[in-house]
Amino acid sequence: MTHSLTLDAAWDLSVRVLETAGFSPAHAAAISRTIWAGQRDECHSHGLYRLLVCTHTLKTGKVSPDAEPVVSDAGPGLVRVDAKGAYSLLAYETGRPVLIAKAKTVGLAALAINHCYHFSALWPEVEAIAEAGLVAMAMTPSHAWVAPHGGTKGVFGTNPLAFAWPRPEGNPFVFDFATSAAARGEIELHRRAGKPIPEGWGLDRNGNPTTEAEAAMQGAMLTFGGHKGSALSAMIELMAGPLIGDFLSLESMAFDGDTGATPYHGELILAFDPKVFMGPDHVVHSARAEALFDAILGQGARLPSQRRYEARARSLASGRVTIPRKLYDDLIALLDPASPSSPF
Amino acid sequence: MTHSLTLDAAWDLSVRVLETAGFSPAHAAAISRTIWAGQRDECHSHGLYRLLVCTHTLKTGKVSPDAEPVVSDAGPGLVRVDAKGAYSLLAYETGRPVLIAKAKTVGLAALAINHCYHFSALWPEVEAIAEAGLVAMAMTPSHAWVAPHGGTKGVFGTNPLAFAWPRPEGNPFVFDFATSAAARGEIELHRRAGKPIPEGWGLDRNGNPTTEAEAAMQGAMLTFGGHKGSALSAMIELMAGPLIGDFLSLESMAFDGDTGATPYHGELILAFDPKVFMGPDHVVHSARAEALFDAILGQGARLPSQRRYEARARSLASGRVTIPRKLYDDLIALLDPASPSSPF
Repeated sequence: MTHSLTLDAAWDLSVRVLETAGFSPAHAAAISRTIWAGQRDECHSHGLYRLLVCTHTLKTGKVSPDAEPVVSDAGPGLVRVDAKGAYSLLAYETGRPVLIAKAKTVGLAALAINHCYHFSALWPEVEAIAEAGLVAMAMTPSHAWVAPHGGTKGVFGTNPLAFAWPRPEGNPFVFDFATSAAARGEIELHRRAGKPIPEGWGLDRNGNPTTEAEAAMQGAMLTFGGHKGSALSAMIELMAGPLIGDFLSLESMAFDGDTGATPYHGELILAFDPKVFMGPDHVVHSARAEALFDAILGQGARLPSQRRYEARARSLASGRVTIPRKLYDDLIALLDPASPSSPF
Repeated sequence: MTHSLTLDAAWDLSVRVLETAGFSPAHAAAISRTIWAGQRDECHSHGLYRLLVCTHTLKTGKVSPDAEPVVSDAGPGLVRVDAKGAYSLLAYETGRPVLIAKAKTVGLAALAINHCYHFSALWPEVEAIAEAGLVAMAMTPSHAWVAPHGGTKGVFGTNPLAFAWPRPEGNPFVFDFATSAAARGEIELHRRAGKPIPEGWGLDRNGNPTTEAEAAMQGAMLTFGGHKGSALSAMIELMAGPLIGDFLSLESMAFDGDTGATPYHGELILAFDPKVFMGPDHVVHSARAEALFDAILGQGARLPSQRRYEARARSLASGRVTIPRKLYDDLIALLDPASPSSPF
């Protein structure tokens, strides 16, 4: 059972659910931009479904629904945005133009977002910077669910790394992956379905490899790629944690206590201006990068975001997205119960 | 059969072999600093053994033995060093103080090394920047030996990523890994020993998984960590290639033709000043990072460079390094044959 909405209706539904829950119009719009983009690209776990998570977390009383981000200039190459305990997305949107302006002047620049709750995929953020012609990298910690290589207890977050490279034509080259072997949500899905998880995803409470989803949820997740993935996760933990004066995943988890709220920490976004780096021949060097993509596609391999861009093209062509009927009903229930029948 | 040398004798041997081969004193010293550090840390494949590779590659006539690096200021956050067809190390050493000065002023900065032959591990470079109190990241392409995830033909280099984080006491946190599943030298060692390689290291010429070292050398290597390692390798290829106006691994390989020389390309090094990023509370935030290392070590896991630092401590305590007798004899033979018996 599914429900089909126009893209405009999906937008309106998102904004109305968030505003009804108590988010300020500015936060509701910033959150909706990323949720709408996720639904458009058929990333269902980061689409309209996330409205349930956002509104639930708001009820825990931890997230600010209306704090205005405070921007501060921290040097020629660094802009800091204090999210003041709200979700990260309005802080990101507030800092992005400053980041882009600094990168164009300096060659490269950093945006440090502090004191934010974070639930969103990073690809919409790096993609938006690539749309402005810049190369972008983004990373965050999360909660300390993931054991270091050779260890048995959670220390790292799922610590995603995202990257975007602007292309002369069409969509940018974008990837966004968790440095954990699997997303926590994937393990949760296996648990609910009563299915075993693949080897290499997790350890039980005693530090032994397990294929039981529940045991891994109680024990520790593993990084992808053995000691290399573990090293990369440590880098993200340091760069998007102490370097920007914000929490480690260990500290985010301790701060959360047992409320099960969205992780609370910082985010680091880097931007590089190819016109500065490549110099006067930037058109030539940009074209040379295309040879890399041609060599990958020419042998039948895929680029990281290809599936997502195909979904986007479908959604934009039809002007519609489809969600489970149950999700639709749950979202409608979040609107004022006194309202007339759904306009969506 | 081994031969023991004092650390000073290892240094003198390296400089004399390189100068005898025709390298200028400045290049011989820069190359020796990294080779000596590799031998001290018992990274044998990047120690005195590399002198054989350096002198061999010089004989192919491709590498300049004496080109002076040319530094140019490319913006407030970017310094470029043109290695002019010589090895990368003198260019790196020439650019490093400018990189550090820029990072301290701007908050972060980049060093782009262009037109260099590259044979060295990246950890000595990021470690030296961490010794100056900065966080560092370094990356390079190489030759197009590594297939993208889902593909069958070489496109990426072994594309190493190195990272260093300064610690208030003791050695910095450092990692340096290839984004290929194994180093090319490891596959070569298996080939020489007639041993099968583990699954996941390579594909044969027809794109099928192989455990035959020779078949993988003729076919393609694989990245670590499946599609995530492949995405990371693409990022390194783009950032340390076209972004700095230099070769992709595909172009480095085409440029080499069939001479089997060391790859020729660029290198990107980023530096971040924690004092700028962390702000006035940098001592506090730096101490918080130590909680991450404590949590890793406290559960019996290791930090990435721990083994190397242990080797370093041994070498510094004894004042000596040990190399195979055959290697020692080969190196002595590279000195002027008319010279009196070895002083080493």
